[in-house]
Amino acid sequence: MAVGLESPPPLAPVTGVRLAAAAAGIKKDGALDLALLELAPGSQVAALFTRNAFCAAPVILARRHLQRTAPRYLLVNSGNANAGTGEQGLADARACCQAVARAAGCAPEAVLPFSTGVIGEPLPLAALTGAIPDLVRTLDADGWLAAARAIMTTDTVPKGASRRFELDGRPVTLTGIAKGAGMIRPDMATMLVFLATDAALAPAQLHACLQDAVARTFHCITVDGDTSTNDACVLAATGGSGVAVPAGSAAQRRFQEELEALCGELARAVVRDGEGATKFITVEVRGGRTEAECRQVAFAVAESPLVKTACFAGDPNWGRILAAVGRAGLPQLDIAAVRIHLGQVCLVRDGGRAPEYEEAQGAAAMAGPEIHIRIELGRGQACTRIWTCDLSYDYVRINAEYRT
Amino acid sequence: MAVGLESPPPLAPVTGVRLAAAAAGIKKDGALDLALLELAPGSQVAALFTRNAFCAAPVILARRHLQRTAPRYLLVNSGNANAGTGEQGLADARACCQAVARAAGCAPEAVLPFSTGVIGEPLPLAALTGAIPDLVRTLDADGWLAAARAIMTTDTVPKGASRRFELDGRPVTLTGIAKGAGMIRPDMATMLVFLATDAALAPAQLHACLQDAVARTFHCITVDGDTSTNDACVLAATGGSGVAVPAGSAAQRRFQEELEALCGELARAVVRDGEGATKFITVEVRGGRTEAECRQVAFAVAESPLVKTACFAGDPNWGRILAAVGRAGLPQLDIAAVRIHLGQVCLVRDGGRAPEYEEAQGAAAMAGPEIHIRIELGRGQACTRIWTCDLSYDYVRINAEYRT
Repeated sequence: MAVGLESPPPLAPVTGVRLAAAAAGIKKDGALDLALLELAPGSQVAALFTRNAFCAAPVILARRHLQRTAPRYLLVNSGNANAGTGEQGLADARACCQAVARAAGCAPEAVLPFSTGVIGEPLPLAALTGAIPDLVRTLDADGWLAAARAIMTTDTVPKGASRRFELDGRPVTLTGIAKGAGMIRPDMATMLVFLATDAALAPAQLHACLQDAVARTFHCITVDGDTSTNDACVLAATGGSGVAVPAGSAAQRRFQEELEALCGELARAVVRDGEGATKFITVEVRGGRTEAECRQVAFAVAESPLVKTACFAGDPNWGRILAAVGRAGLPQLDIAAVRIHLGQVCLVRDGGRAPEYEEAQGAAAMAGPEIHIRIELGRGQACTRIWTCDLSYDYVRINAEYRT
Repeated sequence: MAVGLESPPPLAPVTGVRLAAAAAGIKKDGALDLALLELAPGSQVAALFTRNAFCAAPVILARRHLQRTAPRYLLVNSGNANAGTGEQGLADARACCQAVARAAGCAPEAVLPFSTGVIGEPLPLAALTGAIPDLVRTLDADGWLAAARAIMTTDTVPKGASRRFELDGRPVTLTGIAKGAGMIRPDMATMLVFLATDAALAPAQLHACLQDAVARTFHCITVDGDTSTNDACVLAATGGSGVAVPAGSAAQRRFQEELEALCGELARAVVRDGEGATKFITVEVRGGRTEAECRQVAFAVAESPLVKTACFAGDPNWGRILAAVGRAGLPQLDIAAVRIHLGQVCLVRDGGRAPEYEEAQGAAAMAGPEIHIRIELGRGQACTRIWTCDLSYDYVRINAEYRT
């Protein structure tokens, strides 16, 4: 069902990172559901977590562990979010970290736990910990794709991407995997993202790079406006390439560009695989007074069920778009100054249908799997661009059937 | 498809109000699509309109006319919203008012126009104005139900209600009709509401009564979070009963109660007939610091597609409810203090599943057509209560098929 999205090409190994995946029996269908990611000693790690006040046990524990020591292992299970599980959930997440620590010979605080899946069910702890020794034994630099599969829930395809580029003439690698299809909106929803590079960056620098990249990519997508309890996005820098990235250097700018490109690719993959998606929609808002008001308009349009169902139908119903712009809450918005384009076609000008516009043009601009909506507010220089998908029967089916 | 909603019982005539309805050919299926409501001279009128910055031509014109003179006629068409129609739309709305003025012998400014239906199509003016002379000739005090039918768009049943009560021992009547099924959220969406009483109230008093009643009823519903360009809610007081309601009197308090009860009934009817609705959902939020933060939580839950699809499935997926509470944006929200009840059953306490809760209880509480979600925030004394419906396949079908 994913829109223009296939399984990723081979993912490039990152020196200093090994991965393993297993079917531990957490998912009922016997699919891969557990992944372990090992980072070489000396790796730096930056991480961003959900802003939902209701956050899962592994998120709470991972935040604590990050403050204590540099992570060596990331343990990720799918099929169960370990959220809404109270004290028991925290104890279970801790037990998982201890199991990795025992098998791998590190401190429990050097293990970060991540979970995704159903909320409110106890973690099947024995199944999970029982699978860990084998996971540690089978760690492999080529394990990225298997790990991408093991973290899937309602995703229909694994998501991953690699970029190889040069910094100061020396090759470095950046590889990442992601999962997420529903409960997606800025603040990263049911989304888990693991990124690693063999370049060397200092902790604060790495964190700043990740924040910037996420602001322009994962924080610019929405499937259904819901924000998950488990979102996390992690970037590790192993330094395994021997290439150091000095803060503020041209190399850092290049690294930032590549990171943003990779994150953009993964963020779009999440939307393309949005639950029930049949259309990939770009909402571009230009001519706002501030970027914040452009985002306000873009999300009002992108999360309007009426706009989303019109996209599903391939119906150029610009009235619904204009109505969503009108209710976005912008002070003193002059609707007569607003223009709306679908692809290259201008639909709305001067508060109504553009005189030269014909329905067939709009229908043609919505016929394909990719829809580009451009909204000109005509009151400033700011702009933004977000990605979303349509609302189809299958979104309802998936979310009415998933779970329990 | 409406949840527990049937055609209204006979609607009580209001002295000083006559109505007529016609099939003017605006709707393609030949159904009733035009209504005229006549108010006796001396009637007072209060009106509230959409807050969407993109508002329809009739809304702009009705606001202007209201400032000039007391309305004598309300003309309402369905099938075409006359929105996004620019200058032509305004000219068309004006021409409609003139046609009524000619046929009825009043000033054009004494006519308020209302439209609901498809956005962005030119109003079929000739069909509309052609039907007006007959409408004026057939005005009838018993025309309420026909008018309720004539203003329907995606509504599946006409909506109306009457209340007869005594003020200072003398009988008065309050009757209202409403339409709306999609694009519904506070600010009144595609919703049109016409209320009339034969009590006599002063203009400012009438406006205050309407504002209070709407705040607690029509502003407490959401179907899909979208706000229409055409919403309007009108309350007329003809004084035809000879019963005056002094400002600040016990009679006014009684009138206010009855008005709020009537508005509540109509507001719930709109939700019960929400597009594709199979469940009527009450979201009650208690223990907030302010009513505003209670509303913030209630709407985050009521508009969450994940909560709505879970309700459609009858799935007591409390994790989705708790996740929506968590992302509602309340500062310093302590999730461990939050409790969630479905009907009489406590599902969530202390940040997780209530120990005594069993899934079968939750499933039973969601099995019927009425679902009551109660959220206790445990941080204050404020509370609120809103009404919504579920998100079903039919919502997608209706909105992917409706129009053009």
